[in-house]
Amino acid sequence: MTGAAALPDGGTDVLDGARLTLWAPPGLPEVRPGDDLGVLVGDLLAADARRTGDPLAEGDVVVVTSKVVSKAEGRVVRAADREQAITDETVRVVATRERPDGQPPLRIVENRLGLVMAAAGVDASNTPDGTVLLLPEDPDASARGLREVLRARFGLDRLGVVVTDTAGRPWRDGVTDIAIGAAGLRVVDDLRGGVDSHGRALSATVTAVADEIAAASELVRGKATGRAVAVVRGLARYVPGAASDDGGAAVGPGARSLVRTGPDDLFREGAAEAYARGFADGRAAPSR
Amino acid sequence: MTGAAALPDGGTDVLDGARLTLWAPPGLPEVRPGDDLGVLVGDLLAADARRTGDPLAEGDVVVVTSKVVSKAEGRVVRAADREQAITDETVRVVATRERPDGQPPLRIVENRLGLVMAAAGVDASNTPDGTVLLLPEDPDASARGLREVLRARFGLDRLGVVVTDTAGRPWRDGVTDIAIGAAGLRVVDDLRGGVDSHGRALSATVTAVADEIAAASELVRGKATGRAVAVVRGLARYVPGAASDDGGAAVGPGARSLVRTGPDDLFREGAAEAYARGFADGRAAPSR
Repeated sequence: MTGAAALPDGGTDVLDGARLTLWAPPGLPEVRPGDDLGVLVGDLLAADARRTGDPLAEGDVVVVTSKVVSKAEGRVVRAADREQAITDETVRVVATRERPDGQPPLRIVENRLGLVMAAAGVDASNTPDGTVLLLPEDPDASARGLREVLRARFGLDRLGVVVTDTAGRPWRDGVTDIAIGAAGLRVVDDLRGGVDSHGRALSATVTAVADEIAAASELVRGKATGRAVAVVRGLARYVPGAASDDGGAAVGPGARSLVRTGPDDLFREGAAEAYARGFADGRAAPSR
Repeated sequence: MTGAAALPDGGTDVLDGARLTLWAPPGLPEVRPGDDLGVLVGDLLAADARRTGDPLAEGDVVVVTSKVVSKAEGRVVRAADREQAITDETVRVVATRERPDGQPPLRIVENRLGLVMAAAGVDASNTPDGTVLLLPEDPDASARGLREVLRARFGLDRLGVVVTDTAGRPWRDGVTDIAIGAAGLRVVDDLRGGVDSHGRALSATVTAVADEIAAASELVRGKATGRAVAVVRGLARYVPGAASDDGGAAVGPGARSLVRTGPDDLFREGAAEAYARGFADGRAAPSR
């Protein structure tokens, strides 16, 4: 572990020579509707601390998958109702893709959380047979609730909580985890107005810290092992305390603030859908 | 640090109880065209090992920003030529956005690396005054070159290298880092054909590991500090050795394989552009 004093760039370094450490405590039981997730996650972290001698600390971020949040909140739907569940979660269809062998088209939609996701984020992996899971009702509220339970139990002031989900991205193969809920965390690092190492103004640099935390946590949780909880240590600079300059804003703006949709969205509609709409409008337009 | 023996889920756990640790050694000098980046990064990592007593190890992943790769490769263009540089790097304009105060429209394009990025990835931050930087000519090749130099210098077999850049995403606020070059690393974790913790087949789960590594590394590098190099420890399962089952494939498929564009791309064109093209075609279509 490097110490700040040993660093060539010394005290001006916000990273302070610290390492970023992530781990995913094993042993969370199967979560069922009505379970108190705060208690289960607290028990998991307490058992992990006993085993490792390394308890949860000020400035840590606890990352929890939306899957276990949804299970605890009873957001379970019978699998036969999957297409209806997607429709119910949908605010707006963004694009569709035909699928083989008689399956209904895959819908990429904006859901009621503002998230643009395939199948509205309705998920069928790691769930009991015959069921699918909806996303939590309000993942930022879920994160705030978890944060309060864990702060009280472990006697901490500065604690961040992130609720993750897995999403595809245009133009990139594979999925990554993103933050759909957050509390006690600055979800972005807004460097606009700052300067780079040449003293030049940093332009348009707002880093989506909460999404980077979600992605990093996936690397240590791993999909196949089904671990639902990770701890991230070393990002205390993004975890303000109740008594900090942020005061009452310490809970943070939540992951909802990372959503960017609306008229300003250049990709508010799939290319084929926009073309078809344009074609129809062009055909119906009065001739010159 | 947890040991595998102490874990409830024991030996079957691919994560093996290990923690993921990331750090960003300070002290890389300003990189100039013609510099041997492999030597500079090697010197940085050697100095870091002397300071911390913790040398680069088998299975580590070294992450380097494209910015210093581009600088070493002399990919510098006078700032007055910025718009022309963007045009030269562009294969296809995907969308444009008008900008205030007489600036030329922002172009989101597919560049010659297949990456869809604002301004083709041409960048003006952290560069000397009056210049902008193009992306490396071939970031996967740059990663392979760095990997060979570092493997030889530190006497390692299993070593991954990732070259990162910063990119925006549709529908999400803020930027994250992605992998635009990679070597010695499985860039995806392909779980298709595997089973989840319920024994149910995992569907369509291909995790973009290299992008998650890039995002995680940004958290410890930090934009404002301008640190260009990070080490990621704990992902050896994605870093095959030359003598492994992967044999000659140990160098990996590269980050280019994460690019997903072409006719199958639902967002190959901005909504406004697709609509306008459809409108014109509809207007020109013979009437029924």
